[in-house]
Amino acid sequence: MLGRTYEKEICSAARALEIAGERWSLLILRNAAFAGMTRFTEFQKSLDLAPNILAARLDYFVETGLMIKSGDDGPHETYRLTRKGLDFKPVIIALTEWGDRWAAPDGAPIVYEHEGCGGRVRHELTCTTCGEHPRPQGVSARKTAVMTRLRARRASRVAKKR
Amino acid sequence: MLGRTYEKEICSAARALEIAGERWSLLILRNAAFAGMTRFTEFQKSLDLAPNILAARLDYFVETGLMIKSGDDGPHETYRLTRKGLDFKPVIIALTEWGDRWAAPDGAPIVYEHEGCGGRVRHELTCTTCGEHPRPQGVSARKTAVMTRLRARRASRVAKKR
Repeated sequence: MLGRTYEKEICSAARALEIAGERWSLLILRNAAFAGMTRFTEFQKSLDLAPNILAARLDYFVETGLMIKSGDDGPHETYRLTRKGLDFKPVIIALTEWGDRWAAPDGAPIVYEHEGCGGRVRHELTCTTCGEHPRPQGVSARKTAVMTRLRARRASRVAKKR
Repeated sequence: MLGRTYEKEICSAARALEIAGERWSLLILRNAAFAGMTRFTEFQKSLDLAPNILAARLDYFVETGLMIKSGDDGPHETYRLTRKGLDFKPVIIALTEWGDRWAAPDGAPIVYEHEGCGGRVRHELTCTTCGEHPRPQGVSARKTAVMTRLRARRASRVAKKR
């Protein structure tokens, strides 16, 4: 498990990757979120993945609250995404759009649809002030007071240990 | 390198993960894209990462066209993101939003800003037909004719090998 690999990072993206950044993790979530898979054997067959790796990933998703396991252990047990797990759908869509643009010479193998009207769903960056959709180049990151506070807290912990 | 781990997948998200899904990869891209880092020593110091792993990641980014390396080998060499590399910014923003919501009890350590007006940038799912912003639960995936064609091509290759 990736677990606390990124422990030193004060970063929400790193926190997300600690939970879903391990090899195969996002593809398991993809199959649960978009192909409706719930059973161990379905994931295993579709991903052609070693059972011990799949079991470790699913257990970790249950432990971290991305999935709920139901039913008796064995062929009837199911793994279902929670709201926390479903919230990885935008990440998967963003990855798909990158791949469609840069690594799909034959075109997009799947498209995302709005269940309400059947329209195509895209992932967009939107400025909440002016409403523009900036290009990636036009977006920067700014540290907040939370970052300052967390860094100070960490520094004081390190000082105490000395 | 993750390389062709997901070779059997006909999936743009899997293609993106083959390029940037290895441990540390997305955090290196984050530092290049949002902290303006270009030098080996900057990445190394900020991520506290083994030099051989960092070198492997940067080389792979150059090989796959996410970065361009300039300058002589050594302390003056720089690694700069291409358009293909910058296009991972929305993926990093989507991961950050997941982490802000589910793994940042103290609040968001960083926010994304629109360089044009200084406003806050969010990542949204948008239906291109009705203009709604569907919740993740309301988005599904549909296979396209490209998927059908690629599957048929693969099946015929497998049949020829037998």
